[in-house]
Amino acid sequence: MDLATLIGLIIGIACILWGMYDGGNPSAFWSLSSLAVTFGGGLASTIIAFTLDDFRNLLKVLPKLFKRKEQSPYKLIQLLVELSQKARREGLLALESNQEEIEDEYLKKALELVVDGVEPEIIRDSMQLELDNMSIRHGKCISIFKTLAAEFPAWGMIGTLLGLINLLRSMDDPSQIGAAMSLALVTTFYGSILANMICVPVATKLQELSTEEIRIKEMIIEGVLSIQAGENPRIMEHRLKTFLSPEQREDYERMIAGGSSFQANRLQ
Amino acid sequence: MDLATLIGLIIGIACILWGMYDGGNPSAFWSLSSLAVTFGGGLASTIIAFTLDDFRNLLKVLPKLFKRKEQSPYKLIQLLVELSQKARREGLLALESNQEEIEDEYLKKALELVVDGVEPEIIRDSMQLELDNMSIRHGKCISIFKTLAAEFPAWGMIGTLLGLINLLRSMDDPSQIGAAMSLALVTTFYGSILANMICVPVATKLQELSTEEIRIKEMIIEGVLSIQAGENPRIMEHRLKTFLSPEQREDYERMIAGGSSFQANRLQ
Amino acid sequence: MDLATLIGLIIGIACILWGMYDGGNPSAFWSLSSLAVTFGGGLASTIIAFTLDDFRNLLKVLPKLFKRKEQSPYKLIQLLVELSQKARREGLLALESNQEEIEDEYLKKALELVVDGVEPEIIRDSMQLELDNMSIRHGKCISIFKTLAAEFPAWGMIGTLLGLINLLRSMDDPSQIGAAMSLALVTTFYGSILANMICVPVATKLQELSTEEIRIKEMIIEGVLSIQAGENPRIMEHRLKTFLSPEQREDYERMIAGGSSFQANRLQ
Amino acid sequence: MDLATLIGLIIGIACILWGMYDGGNPSAFWSLSSLAVTFGGGLASTIIAFTLDDFRNLLKVLPKLFKRKEQSPYKLIQLLVELSQKARREGLLALESNQEEIEDEYLKKALELVVDGVEPEIIRDSMQLELDNMSIRHGKCISIFKTLAAEFPAWGMIGTLLGLINLLRSMDDPSQIGAAMSLALVTTFYGSILANMICVPVATKLQELSTEEIRIKEMIIEGVLSIQAGENPRIMEHRLKTFLSPEQREDYERMIAGGSSFQANRLQ
Amino acid sequence: MDLATLIGLIIGIACILWGMYDGGNPSAFWSLSSLAVTFGGGLASTIIAFTLDDFRNLLKVLPKLFKRKEQSPYKLIQLLVELSQKARREGLLALESNQEEIEDEYLKKALELVVDGVEPEIIRDSMQLELDNMSIRHGKCISIFKTLAAEFPAWGMIGTLLGLINLLRSMDDPSQIGAAMSLALVTTFYGSILANMICVPVATKLQELSTEEIRIKEMIIEGVLSIQAGENPRIMEHRLKTFLSPEQREDYERMIAGGSSFQANRLQ
Repeated sequence: MDLATLIGLIIGIACILWGMYDGGNPSAFWSLSSLAVTFGGGLASTIIAFTLDDFRNLLKVLPKLFKRKEQSPYKLIQLLVELSQKARREGLLALESNQEEIEDEYLKKALELVVDGVEPEIIRDSMQLELDNMSIRHGKCISIFKTLAAEFPAWGMIGTLLGLINLLRSMDDPSQIGAAMSLALVTTFYGSILANMICVPVATKLQELSTEEIRIKEMIIEGVLSIQAGENPRIMEHRLKTFLSPEQREDYERMIAGGSSFQANRLQ
Repeated sequence: MDLATLIGLIIGIACILWGMYDGGNPSAFWSLSSLAVTFGGGLASTIIAFTLDDFRNLLKVLPKLFKRKEQSPYKLIQLLVELSQKARREGLLALESNQEEIEDEYLKKALELVVDGVEPEIIRDSMQLELDNMSIRHGKCISIFKTLAAEFPAWGMIGTLLGLINLLRSMDDPSQIGAAMSLALVTTFYGSILANMICVPVATKLQELSTEEIRIKEMIIEGVLSIQAGENPRIMEHRLKTFLSPEQREDYERMIAGGSSFQANRLQ
Repeated sequence: MDLATLIGLIIGIACILWGMYDGGNPSAFWSLSSLAVTFGGGLASTIIAFTLDDFRNLLKVLPKLFKRKEQSPYKLIQLLVELSQKARREGLLALESNQEEIEDEYLKKALELVVDGVEPEIIRDSMQLELDNMSIRHGKCISIFKTLAAEFPAWGMIGTLLGLINLLRSMDDPSQIGAAMSLALVTTFYGSILANMICVPVATKLQELSTEEIRIKEMIIEGVLSIQAGENPRIMEHRLKTFLSPEQREDYERMIAGGSSFQANRLQ
Repeated sequence: MDLATLIGLIIGIACILWGMYDGGNPSAFWSLSSLAVTFGGGLASTIIAFTLDDFRNLLKVLPKLFKRKEQSPYKLIQLLVELSQKARREGLLALESNQEEIEDEYLKKALELVVDGVEPEIIRDSMQLELDNMSIRHGKCISIFKTLAAEFPAWGMIGTLLGLINLLRSMDDPSQIGAAMSLALVTTFYGSILANMICVPVATKLQELSTEEIRIKEMIIEGVLSIQAGENPRIMEHRLKTFLSPEQREDYERMIAGGSSFQANRLQ
Repeated sequence: MDLATLIGLIIGIACILWGMYDGGNPSAFWSLSSLAVTFGGGLASTIIAFTLDDFRNLLKVLPKLFKRKEQSPYKLIQLLVELSQKARREGLLALESNQEEIEDEYLKKALELVVDGVEPEIIRDSMQLELDNMSIRHGKCISIFKTLAAEFPAWGMIGTLLGLINLLRSMDDPSQIGAAMSLALVTTFYGSILANMICVPVATKLQELSTEEIRIKEMIIEGVLSIQAGENPRIMEHRLKTFLSPEQREDYERMIAGGSSFQANRLQ
């Protein structure tokens, strides 16, 4: 799990606990049936909206996205430059020997196509199509979290309505009204927490991670096609560097200047 | 009805029932006139917004979408590869004999055009146009459910306003105020349930099913044009496989390796 | 007025009346000043937002859109096929004799351009431009109804605020508070009804009608250019049929098979 | 100021005054500090969001947009047709003598470029670029009013929160609670009025005026390029007429048929 | 910090203070735990949604955006015209001597490419790619502020729910209910202020600044490619002037006419 997620969760939970204990009555915030209505209802709406396959897929994609070792764009550029230099020195077929060292599946497959002598347009089309389809799959995961983020508060409100309707119908004991209203509000509270602390941020993060992965893959497409076209490695490096922010570019220059050994620079 | 819809509905109804019985007063949630105002009003707004043809169309499309036997993309790819191999061995005209076995209407019509020797651009245009128009028709169904999803809560609120205005005008018997407010809130409750448990999820699901169907049809366009161009079946297979997720691709490889008999692989 | 609009209005009004009479106090829902604030205010905001010409235009467009005899796409296809056959048999100039029988202004003008021997690109550009500009004019009408749909509830809330501020300032007679709050809520009620029963559905319906008309006109562009190019009438028919839904296509086949007399098939 | 704006403002103010006096307590709606919080706060947020230059620009653009003499598209078409006829009779250079009579700056500049013999693509690019940049400048003005329309109600609610927090903290004199809540609600009332009667309609109107101006300028581009290409004036007239609504087209035909004198037809 | 931001902040804070002191009870608005829940919770959600790198990046970008010396488009046009004239007189290589005087990094790099004799399409692609990637980086900063603007009010409401649930559960001392509700509302107040006075305006301003910077960079692309193509400096000036508003154009003409010395006109 990446650090920001962890820090954010800790701060968020601390804030809620502070708010709960500050009022001196933390037990007021616990109610199993409230949790059932809010969480169960929100989940039910989302399950109806998607298929079981989508959820199975989500369970596979989620851990990957959160555990993935971040792909360094610096090392990717360096690797592509090295491959480009090698291809110009020894020919495209020489790239075959590098394939085992490359860990990125997408780059590996693209180089295979290059070594096989497939035409550039077909390589671009095929890689772009794969990118588009990956983006659609990611979009479905994001869409599930967005649906959850909308349904949890809605079911929180439904739970509060349930509580209020019950409460107002039978106001026999006025001393219980306060406690009953308090209980009715707990579902709205659960719905807001589930949406704002889990679903909205996760949906945003998945979107960001997906965008990031697409950009890395676009760099790979640019780089591989440039290698195949036998372009000057420096021109390619210049173009790939435009994907970096000014700060990243300085870091990259520093890394290159640091003369890091060839072995250490392998894309990880 | 697909499994997710069923599971979702059961969980959702269970949650609501729990919430109702938990307060000890389930009869408080039933009111015919409240249901009439919420459901009738929301339906009325939606009927005004569309035409009777749209609703007739919806009644035809809905069962199809929910009952349809899911088209396996694996088998579609396998079928297209077989057709491609046959076309390269025996010529495009040989595909005519396969047409009776193919169950998918869209693929059938496309192959007819190929066998008739129609030019590729015209086939692509015509199939794309059909896809676009199907997407518009699906869009109308989705649009009806989105309108319902917006109108039910709106009419729930109108019903609550009706109840409150009535209640506040004649507060003669203070002991009845609670029950009357409870009744007034029931329409809001109905509106939220109808929107969040039925209309929003169904609209989302229709959107997903439509997207899925469009992707399958796009695979068919790609495949048929590739067959007509006499492309290498392996290149075509490679391209079609980019439509699959990494998991699906592994499943596909396993299925192919399993040497399933020719007859069993027919697209269903 | 089309049937759906009528049915919807009747159901909607019936639901509201039920809700009103159910509380036994229908007079509570009538207040001239509340109506003035909600309707007048919402209208005022919309008048400021547009020009008098836009409203004059709206008054002309509305009855047309609601009274228009629905253009049957079946008969349009049939007519275009007949024209295409005639043009192939007797030449493009022969179409001149048909022009009086054609009632659709847009098709008429397009055929005139064809008979005059104007170049295809100019015909397409000119017809597309007319379509785009019609779509912009329709968009303005839709936009007026969307503004009304947003402003009526906003002014309903303003009216309720007016009532509450007045009420809270002078709470001398506690027995009147209920009635005064009831009155204050009536504007919110009016605003919701005006928006949800009239403006939102009409805006959606105008959008649908406009989309439908644009699709019909796009079929005409496709058809006329195909006639001018001397394309095979069957290919043209095939392409135009993709605009129909599967159900409509069956209806169309049935109509053609029915051998309806030539005169009866004229586009109406 | 155009008539619709004036009528709308009068109706809107009348409605509010009716609502205020109807409750018998118009003084309840006046509070300087409430106005300060709502107006000042909303303005403050908007000032932070933009630069002083944007506001200076707004002050220059606003009066122009509201006072501008509406450009008649009929007369524009007529003028372009006359120019086209003259150019075909006497050559493009003859247009130089007309430049002083033309009041529209944009048309004037375009004709200068034509007379100077600049190439069509460069004229189109340059005029389109000017149009795009004008549209961006207009967009900023619209954006300011949209921000105000969102911030006024937000600050109205902030003001009401301020009042409520104060009120609830010190409920010593129960007889004052009503008046204090009434005062607290006044900011929400101000925020709603400012947004719904001023900012939302003005933003919409600016959008419409900008769209209108862009369409007029697009007609000019079409016309000038057609003149430069030496196109038949009747073809050009036909194309420009597609920018008109059916009603406007009839008016135009009537105006042409009316044989209005040449001098009177000058674009104003 | 630019002037508008400062003025806006002062007006906004003054309005809030007025509102606070007007009620005579400013201490009612201070609560550390309320601030912790609102600010901490909103921040936590945003931290989860992004990565630590994004925040580090934000801290670097923010001061730049607020302190940046505004780039005058007048001087940019003048500089590009001078460079164009020099290039036509002395050849593209002569531009090398100007590079040290140019402060804008983007223009500098573009001129280097021109002097190096790189082909126009590659220059345009490379510069456009850099622009796109810059726009994506800016978009992420804007996105963070938009997330904060949505999360602060959400956590304000969560805080109020926390307070209400606590309050309603233990209503032992009726005299404390007012003060407790007052405290509960303070979080909503904080959330609204943080969103409407800080996050929404900053997000809008970042968007505007980013748009402005992109436009300046687009002018540079246009100018540099025009210089490389050896276009007439006057045509280039005409095209670049379309980026200015009518007012800016007059200012520009005045500046040019003022015969400002060459040295003073350098782009700053």
